[in-house]
Amino acid sequence: MSVSAGPGDRYVVGVDYGTLSGRALVVRVGDGAELGTAVHEYRHAVMDTVLAVDGQALPADWALQDPDDYREVLRQAVPAALAASGVDPRQVIGIGIDFTACTVLPTRADGTPLCELPDLRTRPHAWVKLWKHHAAQPQADRINELAHARDEPWIGRYGGKISAEWQYAKGLQLLEEDPEVYDRAERWIEAADWIVWQLCGVETRNVCTAGYKGIRQDGRYPSREYLAALNPGFADFVAKIDGPLAPLGARAGGLTAEAAAWTGLPEGIAVAVGNVDAHVTSAAAQALDPGRLVAIMGTSTCHVVNGTELAEVAGMCGVVDGGISSGHWGYEAGQSGVGDIFGWYVQHAAPAGFDSHEALTAAAAAQPVGAHGLVALDWWNGNRSLLVNHDLSGVIVGLTLATRPPDVYRALLESTAFGTRMIIEAFAEAGVPVDEIIVAGGLTNNALLMQIYADVTKRPLGIIGSTQGPALGSAIHAAVAAGAYPDVPAASAVMGRVDRDVYRPDPQRALAYDALYAEYRRLHDHFGRGGDEALLRLRTIRNAARRAADHSPAGEAAVPLEVLA
Amino acid sequence: MSVSAGPGDRYVVGVDYGTLSGRALVVRVGDGAELGTAVHEYRHAVMDTVLAVDGQALPADWALQDPDDYREVLRQAVPAALAASGVDPRQVIGIGIDFTACTVLPTRADGTPLCELPDLRTRPHAWVKLWKHHAAQPQADRINELAHARDEPWIGRYGGKISAEWQYAKGLQLLEEDPEVYDRAERWIEAADWIVWQLCGVETRNVCTAGYKGIRQDGRYPSREYLAALNPGFADFVAKIDGPLAPLGARAGGLTAEAAAWTGLPEGIAVAVGNVDAHVTSAAAQALDPGRLVAIMGTSTCHVVNGTELAEVAGMCGVVDGGISSGHWGYEAGQSGVGDIFGWYVQHAAPAGFDSHEALTAAAAAQPVGAHGLVALDWWNGNRSLLVNHDLSGVIVGLTLATRPPDVYRALLESTAFGTRMIIEAFAEAGVPVDEIIVAGGLTNNALLMQIYADVTKRPLGIIGSTQGPALGSAIHAAVAAGAYPDVPAASAVMGRVDRDVYRPDPQRALAYDALYAEYRRLHDHFGRGGDEALLRLRTIRNAARRAADHSPAGEAAVPLEVLA
Repeated sequence: MSVSAGPGDRYVVGVDYGTLSGRALVVRVGDGAELGTAVHEYRHAVMDTVLAVDGQALPADWALQDPDDYREVLRQAVPAALAASGVDPRQVIGIGIDFTACTVLPTRADGTPLCELPDLRTRPHAWVKLWKHHAAQPQADRINELAHARDEPWIGRYGGKISAEWQYAKGLQLLEEDPEVYDRAERWIEAADWIVWQLCGVETRNVCTAGYKGIRQDGRYPSREYLAALNPGFADFVAKIDGPLAPLGARAGGLTAEAAAWTGLPEGIAVAVGNVDAHVTSAAAQALDPGRLVAIMGTSTCHVVNGTELAEVAGMCGVVDGGISSGHWGYEAGQSGVGDIFGWYVQHAAPAGFDSHEALTAAAAAQPVGAHGLVALDWWNGNRSLLVNHDLSGVIVGLTLATRPPDVYRALLESTAFGTRMIIEAFAEAGVPVDEIIVAGGLTNNALLMQIYADVTKRPLGIIGSTQGPALGSAIHAAVAAGAYPDVPAASAVMGRVDRDVYRPDPQRALAYDALYAEYRRLHDHFGRGGDEALLRLRTIRNAARRAADHSPAGEAAVPLEVLA
Repeated sequence: MSVSAGPGDRYVVGVDYGTLSGRALVVRVGDGAELGTAVHEYRHAVMDTVLAVDGQALPADWALQDPDDYREVLRQAVPAALAASGVDPRQVIGIGIDFTACTVLPTRADGTPLCELPDLRTRPHAWVKLWKHHAAQPQADRINELAHARDEPWIGRYGGKISAEWQYAKGLQLLEEDPEVYDRAERWIEAADWIVWQLCGVETRNVCTAGYKGIRQDGRYPSREYLAALNPGFADFVAKIDGPLAPLGARAGGLTAEAAAWTGLPEGIAVAVGNVDAHVTSAAAQALDPGRLVAIMGTSTCHVVNGTELAEVAGMCGVVDGGISSGHWGYEAGQSGVGDIFGWYVQHAAPAGFDSHEALTAAAAAQPVGAHGLVALDWWNGNRSLLVNHDLSGVIVGLTLATRPPDVYRALLESTAFGTRMIIEAFAEAGVPVDEIIVAGGLTNNALLMQIYADVTKRPLGIIGSTQGPALGSAIHAAVAAGAYPDVPAASAVMGRVDRDVYRPDPQRALAYDALYAEYRRLHDHFGRGGDEALLRLRTIRNAARRAADHSPAGEAAVPLEVLA
């Protein structure tokens, strides 16, 4: 980095907790300049097959983490980032974090993770359940069925579906599969809030995860009656998640002596309230104004946008008052597979000579819109919004003997753009305007993809000015918590960075895309909204075939290899 | 070949005229043993971009051939096959041929091709129009529209659609685009009949092409009134195609002195009536009994089966009295893309390590039925039966991030088997039973594919015992024409070869395939029978995009390459 620290400057540290590692970033308060960064990879990464402590096998769809790996990021990455920055730690006035969500753990009343109690160390349910722990789907199904049966007022705020990833499904699974651990869990807390507790010694609950993942709406959680109807033992669940609520950008407390020793930062500096990776990126991208949708595009895409009015948008992840920044309704949506689909194509479907994004992009860019004759449904990893169904799968139509790899690759790029347009149009139809798109994340490098998004959505596209969007966003929140700015928008205006209108829709291509988008939408509704549940039946057939194969002599249902002789 | 010629044996020569070459095969009359073979490639191959004689550009979708290339097969391949066989030409008693169809040319009354007249040599319409000349689609559309409007009695015999490939569409195009050549065409004749004419000096018309391609039904051609309504100048068209009709296996005449000089065969030996490649294969495969369907599987598949009753089968290519062998109703159907699709996959969609049929087959065979979660529609090259629409295209549904190349490859193999089952069921529903399948052609080598066909169709699968099915079939017809056998079935029984019941359906897999076939059928009807004409609209979009790009500065509608910088 070419920026150097000045003697009179003040700094903040943002820490971004991802799925496999944590990144610390030292940022200058006065202008948002990034001075130094460091990454620490979690020692236990994701425990999805065995529990590290004793090697016991975990069931399918589990995903656990070790909370001490999060502390280790504070011990390793923060000092390393400080060292890299050349900043005198005494000039640092605050620290803020963002986390994956819903990543949640059971603790004692003092914040001690249950997995750190000697007698519970080998109990899988005592560990952190990562966001992609998907084993609570049966509980989620019951949560949704009952909510609709009882016409619960909050269900519409979540597009009609509570995810299996969220606090309630994971908590209910804990109760029903390990009631003793459930009973001993005095707190059930987002990792975002837990690590803040570790930093400042004070338990807080941020309004973002309390709203999106904790079903807190209009100052209330789901009722005791509803929870008891799910399971009588679940009636008091809210007592485990309710806590001192704090708005985003607030000061949770001062850095403890212990945490100061871990990080090398001064004791007592401001610790910002916890937050979520996608949501803090809005501040980093100067995209807190209503109508400015941030798309964090990587292996998957998360969309967040502020609105001035409350609206219920079918199929969205959720709407939360102050969920992105205070004073607005924060809307969230997502696409389960984006960069993952392009990566799948390059790795598993592209012949020699076309097995790089660069080669495919260069060849695909030369095509006029529609010349490949293809449309795809981008559901290789299911559909998070608007259909909220992970049993859906991908579709390609229009293949011919003349179809070539750049044709398919471009159709895949376009399919994700069509998926984004579906989400934007659902927002718009519900009264949540989207006037421009600001893109963050790894896919901003693909100019063809960006131009396709502009052409398909007919919106100008801006690009975040930092490659460390979440960590910068956390640093911005730290600056606000430290009192350097009156609120997050003020800090974002100075410390955030964005290049607006980098890509503008081309009218001719946009018009041509309308025809292809109409085909996408028709296919979307046919395969996703009840026209034909072929994809769901194929999933059932697939799973049954695999189970049968697992429980019978190998290849019983397959063609015997001897016929190939 | 390990068979050697004996001094007292009699022989016949079969000549198979394919798209790019002609093959001659010397066969022993007494047992069908194949003694020698030779191939001659057409010097002008397929003229689909320029006319060879003067280099003039041909319009899109044209495909012409030079009739002298066919004579050259007689001059080159027949003597070479004789030499390879070690047979004394004096022991040869007959020659028979089969041809692609409808491959058709205009000639004078004496059989001279118009393209061989000096003043017509540079007129594209004076040359042979190969079966895959597809530029007469507008004429075919009018032929069909008028036939239905007038409720012509014959249209049902062709599944409701006359192909753009056949005699009428090509003849009408000739009339409307080059009326002088049309007027000078005293005869409009299948290449199958023309080459027989060259061999024996006698014009005949075989009942097979007269029926399937010439719309001769119940002893009549389409009426003068119908033809005049298409175009007043077309009223007398039948006069150009009507000729001395002869049943399959009949003697057209004796080999002329000139043809004897070309071939090295004795003057005066029997020349069999012309025939079509797929249809003669039934005799070679001992599959003339009703209910025994022959599938000639190569780049595409042609299905032929005899029936005892007349039935109109929607979407079939045609039904002709004696069209396969005298005394039965011959039914024909087809799949436009089969081996071509598998080849496309290996060449254009398989990553390194999976870019051979062998590697993919070995990996795909190990899967239980349905474990890949995929279903495909096999329309990469359109659909010949049952939908008769070459603007349809391929579809794959069920793709996920876990989909691997053998999954897709297997789904493609299965999709063509599902297409065959659709055809078989359409036959059965119309009262044309199909009890077993006999496969000929290059794909018989793929044991996994064959087993899938048996499992999917629930029929026992036999394999023809010759790798030169059409040429052997032509030789069988030559033997009948020479009087060595009383009829084609008798000759087929002795000279034909088949291994029956090589693949039998596995009840467990067949049951599992029922579920996948139900999905295929649902997709087939959705995309092919009016549920959603997405594929046709995508074709229109594609063609418009390509035309626009052809007529505007390069890449005007594409993303400018500079955005990729």
